[in-house]
Amino acid sequence: MAKGKILIITYNDVEDIELLYPYYRLIEEGYEVHVASKSKGFIKGKHEYEIKVDITFDEVNPEEYIGLVIPGGRAPEKIRIIPKVIEIVKSFLRKNKPIAAICHGPQLLISANAVKGRRITSYIGIRDDVIAAGGIYEDKEVVVDGNLVTSRHPPDLPAFMREFLKLLSKY
Amino acid sequence: MAKGKILIITYNDVEDIELLYPYYRLIEEGYEVHVASKSKGFIKGKHEYEIKVDITFDEVNPEEYIGLVIPGGRAPEKIRIIPKVIEIVKSFLRKNKPIAAICHGPQLLISANAVKGRRITSYIGIRDDVIAAGGIYEDKEVVVDGNLVTSRHPPDLPAFMREFLKLLSKY
Repeated sequence: MAKGKILIITYNDVEDIELLYPYYRLIEEGYEVHVASKSKGFIKGKHEYEIKVDITFDEVNPEEYIGLVIPGGRAPEKIRIIPKVIEIVKSFLRKNKPIAAICHGPQLLISANAVKGRRITSYIGIRDDVIAAGGIYEDKEVVVDGNLVTSRHPPDLPAFMREFLKLLSKY
Repeated sequence: MAKGKILIITYNDVEDIELLYPYYRLIEEGYEVHVASKSKGFIKGKHEYEIKVDITFDEVNPEEYIGLVIPGGRAPEKIRIIPKVIEIVKSFLRKNKPIAAICHGPQLLISANAVKGRRITSYIGIRDDVIAAGGIYEDKEVVVDGNLVTSRHPPDLPAFMREFLKLLSKY
C-alpha cells in the first residue's frame, strides 16, 4: 500500500538528477509519485534522460497529493508563467503541505509569493531574486522553514531528501 | 560519524543514474562513499554527468570497505579486463561482503567467477551470458542471493537500494 501521493512539477530541461533522485527515493520509501508537466508523453532533461509524464498540469487536483517536489534546471523558469502551475503551488502553501524545491525550483516559490520572511536557499544564481522577494537567504545544503524544504544543487540531494522525508512522515 | 565505507567501481560511459542514485542514497543513509576508477579526475557518464573519482583502482584496499556497488552502462565491459578490478570484486566475494550490481554490472560478477549456481538478474541483453556462466537468471526488479543484490535497469533502483541497504545494515 502506498503511503500517499506526491506530485513533481517539471518540464523539459529539468536538471535530470534533481528529478530522478527524489522520484526513485520517494518510490523506495513507499510513496506513489506522479510527474506533472505541460502535456502527456515524455519530457527530456538537460542530460537527455526521457521522463514519462503521468499527468498534465491542467489535470492536477492538488487535494489528492500530500507533498510537492520542484526540481531545478531550466524547467522552473519555463513553467512559472503558467497560471495553473502557480495555482498548484499556492494550493500546497494554503494547506501547509510539505514542499521541496531545489536549485532553480524556488523560482516557483517566488512566483507564488511564498518567499517573503521565510528562510530559503536556492541555486546561487537566483540568490538575489530570493532576497529581492523578501526571503532570508541561507547558504546551506538544506534549509527547512515550516513546510518549505530548499536546497542549492545536486550534491545537496541526500540532505534535501532526508529532510523532506522527515517532514512527510510527520504530515 | 559515517556508518562505514562503500566502494563504487566504474568508468566512463557508466549509466549515470545507476551511479548517482546509489551514491547519493548511501550518503543520505550515513555511509562514506568512494568512487574508484582507472585514474583520478573525473569520469563522464553516458548522459554526460561528470563524476569525481576519489581513488584509483590501483590504490583501492578492499579491506577498508564494507560493501561494493557496480553500476551499469558501458563501464563494466571496459573495466572487466583490468586484473585489479577483478581482484577487488573477488576480495568482496571471499569475505562475503554485500555486493550490489545493476544492469551490465553483473558482467564483473561473471569475470570474477561469482555467478555459478547463484540466483542473479541483469540487463536483459546479458541474460544469456549470466546463464552461460552457470547463473540462475530471474527476471525480477531485484534478486538477493546471499551477499549478492542484482537488478535489471534504472526503474529497479528503488528496490535495488532498499535490499542493498537492508543487507548492509545486517553486515
